[in-house]
Amino acid sequence: MTKITKLLTDLEIASKADIRPVKEIAEAAGIPEEAVELYGKYKAKIDVTKLPKKTCNGKVVLVTAISPTPAGEGKSTVTVGLADALSQIGEKAMIALREPSLGPVMGMKGGATGGGYSQVLPMEEINLHFNGDLHAITTANNALSAMIDNHLHQGNSLQIDPRRITWKRVLDMNDRALRNVTVGLGGPAHGVPREDGFDITVASEIMAILCLATDLVDLKERLARIVIGYTYGKEAVTVRDLGVEGALTVLLKEAFKPNLVQTIEGTPALIHGGPFANIAHGCNSLMATNTARSLADIVVTEAGFGADLGAEKFMHIKARQGSFSPDAVVIVATVRALKMHGGVPKQQLQEENVEAVRAGIPNLEKHIDTIRRFGIEPVVALNRFISDTSEEVEEIISWCKANNVAAAVADVWGKGGEGGFELAGHVMKQLNSLNNFAPLYDVKDKTADKVRTIVREVYGGEDVQFTDKALKQLIEIERNGWGEMPVCMAKTQYSFTDEPKLTGRPEGFTITIREIIPKLGAGFLVCLTGDIMTMPGLPKQPAALNMDIDAEGNITGLM
Amino acid sequence: MTKITKLLTDLEIASKADIRPVKEIAEAAGIPEEAVELYGKYKAKIDVTKLPKKTCNGKVVLVTAISPTPAGEGKSTVTVGLADALSQIGEKAMIALREPSLGPVMGMKGGATGGGYSQVLPMEEINLHFNGDLHAITTANNALSAMIDNHLHQGNSLQIDPRRITWKRVLDMNDRALRNVTVGLGGPAHGVPREDGFDITVASEIMAILCLATDLVDLKERLARIVIGYTYGKEAVTVRDLGVEGALTVLLKEAFKPNLVQTIEGTPALIHGGPFANIAHGCNSLMATNTARSLADIVVTEAGFGADLGAEKFMHIKARQGSFSPDAVVIVATVRALKMHGGVPKQQLQEENVEAVRAGIPNLEKHIDTIRRFGIEPVVALNRFISDTSEEVEEIISWCKANNVAAAVADVWGKGGEGGFELAGHVMKQLNSLNNFAPLYDVKDKTADKVRTIVREVYGGEDVQFTDKALKQLIEIERNGWGEMPVCMAKTQYSFTDEPKLTGRPEGFTITIREIIPKLGAGFLVCLTGDIMTMPGLPKQPAALNMDIDAEGNITGLM
Repeated sequence: MTKITKLLTDLEIASKADIRPVKEIAEAAGIPEEAVELYGKYKAKIDVTKLPKKTCNGKVVLVTAISPTPAGEGKSTVTVGLADALSQIGEKAMIALREPSLGPVMGMKGGATGGGYSQVLPMEEINLHFNGDLHAITTANNALSAMIDNHLHQGNSLQIDPRRITWKRVLDMNDRALRNVTVGLGGPAHGVPREDGFDITVASEIMAILCLATDLVDLKERLARIVIGYTYGKEAVTVRDLGVEGALTVLLKEAFKPNLVQTIEGTPALIHGGPFANIAHGCNSLMATNTARSLADIVVTEAGFGADLGAEKFMHIKARQGSFSPDAVVIVATVRALKMHGGVPKQQLQEENVEAVRAGIPNLEKHIDTIRRFGIEPVVALNRFISDTSEEVEEIISWCKANNVAAAVADVWGKGGEGGFELAGHVMKQLNSLNNFAPLYDVKDKTADKVRTIVREVYGGEDVQFTDKALKQLIEIERNGWGEMPVCMAKTQYSFTDEPKLTGRPEGFTITIREIIPKLGAGFLVCLTGDIMTMPGLPKQPAALNMDIDAEGNITGLM
Repeated sequence: MTKITKLLTDLEIASKADIRPVKEIAEAAGIPEEAVELYGKYKAKIDVTKLPKKTCNGKVVLVTAISPTPAGEGKSTVTVGLADALSQIGEKAMIALREPSLGPVMGMKGGATGGGYSQVLPMEEINLHFNGDLHAITTANNALSAMIDNHLHQGNSLQIDPRRITWKRVLDMNDRALRNVTVGLGGPAHGVPREDGFDITVASEIMAILCLATDLVDLKERLARIVIGYTYGKEAVTVRDLGVEGALTVLLKEAFKPNLVQTIEGTPALIHGGPFANIAHGCNSLMATNTARSLADIVVTEAGFGADLGAEKFMHIKARQGSFSPDAVVIVATVRALKMHGGVPKQQLQEENVEAVRAGIPNLEKHIDTIRRFGIEPVVALNRFISDTSEEVEEIISWCKANNVAAAVADVWGKGGEGGFELAGHVMKQLNSLNNFAPLYDVKDKTADKVRTIVREVYGGEDVQFTDKALKQLIEIERNGWGEMPVCMAKTQYSFTDEPKLTGRPEGFTITIREIIPKLGAGFLVCLTGDIMTMPGLPKQPAALNMDIDAEGNITGLM
């Protein structure tokens, strides 16, 4: 308990940690030297083709959460702390995490490397550029855009309709002014004018493809299948038609290799791929998860935002495409978020309010219900904050006990792995019992029914409404024979509904699907709900304003 | 001579080369292990703060060229071959080069790692993403744009006039459709509508700043000085006003470290920074040049395109800001380019044509004259191509002899360092004699006079015409007290004039300055001439169409 008496920032704790050369971490994890490509002393890329051939049979623990506050509820922190706890009790554990996007790092949410004494290192470098993966994806995405606009400019032999180009440009940035743009202005020497827009890189189909591809051949084939738009005759135009799948794969060659780092306690962590879970499928790469499963007995991984988003997609998209199933699920809850679901305004979340905690529990209850519907008995991890009172914490734990839900207080932020022993015990119990995992829908179900199943069983809603545009798209999708893919819901993370302000556990609501975008390379149909935006904006006081660096290169203000 | 009988591509030659671990290259160059940050086995970043403090007194050999063809005349190839030749004759030589932009790699010109047996390795990785430097610059540039648009959106307390924002976004891409765009469309939730445009990353002021800054403190201070536009009251708005110089420096921290690689023959090469010389200042980083000068006795470096562009800026911008002067200058000429200057159309450049070579020599003659005006006696390197005939080669060499110009045939493409011995001999002679280097203008001259001096003395033209817009800008620049900076001409590389088709050595021409953009961070005034564009386009058949990668990760089609 002494550790938390002195309040250090995550960056200060990370800077003071005893970081080991990543070579040693690799060696301890059973990764042969020839497979390790160092990026500085503390990061490496793993050439998986040089790993000893082993079966992927490590068990998978998925860490998900209740519906979060804007600051996030600490899934990465719990993932790291749980893996460290498992390591401390003698299990061979490994972590698989997503890599941070610079958008939130420069904007509001901050980095994505855990917190306190449950962090992955080196914190700064993982949060800034990391090993260039997101930049390579940005480049491949925008190279494709440049090829499309060049094709229009050079005669348009494929007869692409500039009004029906669905491929958008991307930047790894929160930049609302780029959501809707016009390009090709300025006269005949400067391309063909058309409407376009920028998404954040983590929403790019290429990010999803990188996260779902199994090898270079599969990567190239998926890239070739991307639909970039339609001809004047309304036929789909693919990357294969443009002939650039080879070049795009060349650009992604290094980014496709998982990155190895370590926790403060030295547990190996593969950090690779980073799709957001509200606008994309929200899971780290299958390549990283599979590699970890071939090296360790237990892989602790996470999926973004609440169980309605990341976990649902983990089950229906990633696990399905990867032909595996999760062996245990942890739901992270916080006193802070439950108070928010209980109706407390943001400014008062620091004040004790046991009533509000109790009033917020139905949100947790629905996420528990969802995981049970998938055939898995979840474990609740209460991620403890310094400001939480014992009464608030006790309210949640005793509710769980009363409702036969395994639950533990996780004080991994303050104590590292040691703070996660009780949680680890519950998880080990789940891993040693059988579960009856099954997806909630079949890919052969009608697309509208797949959406309806998610809305009813996962969100707890009543019905789905499709806009006229979405209805037309549904017909097009069937006509093109693209119906047999899972759906990837794009929905606000703050609510089970498509309206961010409706916290708690709303009932009887309808979800509106405003647009359906087929992603043939990723292998899913993106369904945009409500006002969800695929390019975030910066807040009034972006985190960037607090960042600085001194003459010796010491960074401050990185969260 | 056996080497060139079997015609291999540059990529094939590079793949077959015996590459040594970069750790060994660093050790041989006197770089202590603690300063070496490995990026894979064959690339490293150098932490210059961990180098032994030594005086920067290595001599500098600048490699420049005649006005080039679109394919380039092999400055990088000659730079590498010359350094290898110097190493072979026992000199302690090191290379400082610019890093390639992905625009030309995916477009037409190909990579920038030399050719044949005079290449830097690993060719693929240097040409693709390298160590992420250009991506970091792109990110910092666009983070600033996002901060500007966010400022407009969040109340615009600085009263920035959206019509007078001069800061543009960038991508490391050839993408003409992004030259002129409108952003912020779609309604009040999506920013403030305004005109904007994208430049290629190598034209970003942040690239110039990274290449001219001497340490992290200078880097941050220069970033703070960037003028991003003007208020409604026409006052300049800087990065310091926005308060994000700290965050931008944080984003550039790793990119600011020079990258170490090796030539096929094992000569150490620092490759760092990559501004184009037609639209930017065209020289690798001062950091890399200074680091090389502290480690080696002779540093061979290049400046982009012909001596009218890169070399002029090397003398007036880089050498001036770095307080050093070049000790020798090599002008690369090719039979192919001289034939072009002699009036031969592109399709017939492969055919023997001694007449045309002779007719093209005045272009070379003017570049020789320019270097002499700077007080340095140049050495001409004829970069030999397989298709050159002995008569064509002899025509050039004998003209040089007759005109008292030191000249050598450099067959470094076919033979590596061995093919550069004669050239190395001439260069050593120059290094051992005194020169009278002096810039052609003083920064305190009036800006219009500085431009006039360059047009008359370097381009061999008659006069300068300023558009009304440029004239207004000249007045503004004086009013703001920004007049005492060197100018950075943005001009086509194909001609001494501002009209690309006027090859050879035109006379009596006038250069039109259409716009002057103050770059206070870089410390120069960019003067845009003619139709020069700061974002290139892709050709009808981009190089990307030929690129591919197999299941084992072997790349083909990279030039």
